[in-house]
Amino acid sequence: MLHRSPYARSRYKQTPVDEFELIRRYFDRQRATPGVITGIGDDGAILSVPGTGLELVQVVDTLVEDVHFPAATSAADIAYRAVAVNLSDIAAMGARPRWMTLALTMPSGDEHWLVEFAKGLFKAADAHEVALVGGDTTRGASIVVTVNMTGEVAAGRALLRSGASAGDTIFVTGTIGDAAAGLALLQSGGNDDFLCGRFLRPSARVDTGARLVGRASAAIDLSDGLLGDLRKLLDASGVGGEIDVASVPLSNAMKSRFEQEERTRFALFGGDDYELCFTAADERISDLDDASPIGRVTGESGLVCRLDGDIVDYDDSGYRHFR
Amino acid sequence: MLHRSPYARSRYKQTPVDEFELIRRYFDRQRATPGVITGIGDDGAILSVPGTGLELVQVVDTLVEDVHFPAATSAADIAYRAVAVNLSDIAAMGARPRWMTLALTMPSGDEHWLVEFAKGLFKAADAHEVALVGGDTTRGASIVVTVNMTGEVAAGRALLRSGASAGDTIFVTGTIGDAAAGLALLQSGGNDDFLCGRFLRPSARVDTGARLVGRASAAIDLSDGLLGDLRKLLDASGVGGEIDVASVPLSNAMKSRFEQEERTRFALFGGDDYELCFTAADERISDLDDASPIGRVTGESGLVCRLDGDIVDYDDSGYRHFR
Repeated sequence: MLHRSPYARSRYKQTPVDEFELIRRYFDRQRATPGVITGIGDDGAILSVPGTGLELVQVVDTLVEDVHFPAATSAADIAYRAVAVNLSDIAAMGARPRWMTLALTMPSGDEHWLVEFAKGLFKAADAHEVALVGGDTTRGASIVVTVNMTGEVAAGRALLRSGASAGDTIFVTGTIGDAAAGLALLQSGGNDDFLCGRFLRPSARVDTGARLVGRASAAIDLSDGLLGDLRKLLDASGVGGEIDVASVPLSNAMKSRFEQEERTRFALFGGDDYELCFTAADERISDLDDASPIGRVTGESGLVCRLDGDIVDYDDSGYRHFR
Repeated sequence: MLHRSPYARSRYKQTPVDEFELIRRYFDRQRATPGVITGIGDDGAILSVPGTGLELVQVVDTLVEDVHFPAATSAADIAYRAVAVNLSDIAAMGARPRWMTLALTMPSGDEHWLVEFAKGLFKAADAHEVALVGGDTTRGASIVVTVNMTGEVAAGRALLRSGASAGDTIFVTGTIGDAAAGLALLQSGGNDDFLCGRFLRPSARVDTGARLVGRASAAIDLSDGLLGDLRKLLDASGVGGEIDVASVPLSNAMKSRFEQEERTRFALFGGDDYELCFTAADERISDLDDASPIGRVTGESGLVCRLDGDIVDYDDSGYRHFR
């Protein structure tokens, strides 16, 4: 639910407060609240709806101009992305998206821009039959888009970050690092339709998330970078992990455009892929052909990366806002 | 649900696009969606939750620095207000607030500011037992706060804007115009604890809204100004109305500080009071001692204001964003 874009990393690296700590310290009161099954701390909150056999999953994500996307990004792409990143949080919980609200702050009420924005918004929403049920448009200095999305999942069945056990296999969906590579190309004036499209129009893994219910032991979506997000899953589960860097799936576009060192950096720290990372007992997901095993959960604490059998250290822990 | 602050009126009056029209044109597809009972167009959306006897009410409101509140406003007041304006939308639907998410964009991660912000947020939320279940904090050029709140109401019982009938009496809760007067004082360097407090810490009429269920024929909360908001209710109901300007309740603070002409302007066009305006058959609300009758619903179209029996015209129709 907390979205941190690598795009912001270079711009705001110097700031002193860590967002995770900030949220925990000031907004997470750890107070038992009737009806709130899981509050702050997972990809979404889980709310009980007694009598229905269902629970609601509530997520919210904000995209800020020049922080989460370059100012030159088209209105349609901004809107598409704002919906997709929320769909991804819903997917990571194994839920089905139902409805959303839009809070749109923008410098002007330019009609052409709005027409394009609405097109992108509904393109992403219609693909998963999510209804836009309300909104607020306001004037502000720069574009800020907040989408709040509600999904539903069978009671007690939501995927959490906290269910991984030693011995489970660690999987990712799709290919990893493409979005960061695409963003790097956009920022350097380069282009690659596939890679840039992976940044601008991420495909939330809603169907895969729903199929993982009852099969994955834990799940998270990859918004901040593979290593950082996987660490969050492992920490929430109170376990450790080990991955084989060479087994992290990379796209052909990535392989043809970037050398080994750069593509490894994109894949491990890049973020913005909106793929799923999940853990499961191996054999239970053998029919999920878009998932690749990349490592295993261990009883140790911490995350170990291996390359050709050797342990390798990476000094970048993935972007955090306000770091 | 669409919040327009009079604070913004002077700053952005020149812009050409009307927000109501904008929302209608680009985001309201008037498409029947399973589970969505009322979508865009009322104070909140109403979502069905089959099997529970309840419906969910979903609202969202954004406050932008220098648009909806002066930049000098304290963190606690900003947060309190961001919660209160959403509580007010929930109240206008006759619902009980349940949970909310927070999307907070800010220029820095200043810890003292955040401590104060959290205090104001929880002060407003705890008064109505609303749980904060999720959030996203992001870095941006100015402060933008979006609260998305979910409430519940007995199925089929939500108060709508569209239920007023000719012959109904028009009521308002509390006193009107105080917030606009308080904001004017804040902006001119003046002060009045009561009036400024009415702007900075509005009291959403949650209990009154809940008591109006089954008794009021239509309701709206007063965010944009009495005349503008009442017109929205009358238009949604396909009826007209007539109010006696002299019967609009004013606070003693307002009467002692402002002359007749100015206080009438605050009361009719001021906005930001977050009182309720509702219609009902007179005798059914006789035990609501915080509500004052100000006029009646007519079969004509349009809203007529009378002062000492004469029809009076006001040329300001209340602020709309992007006008």
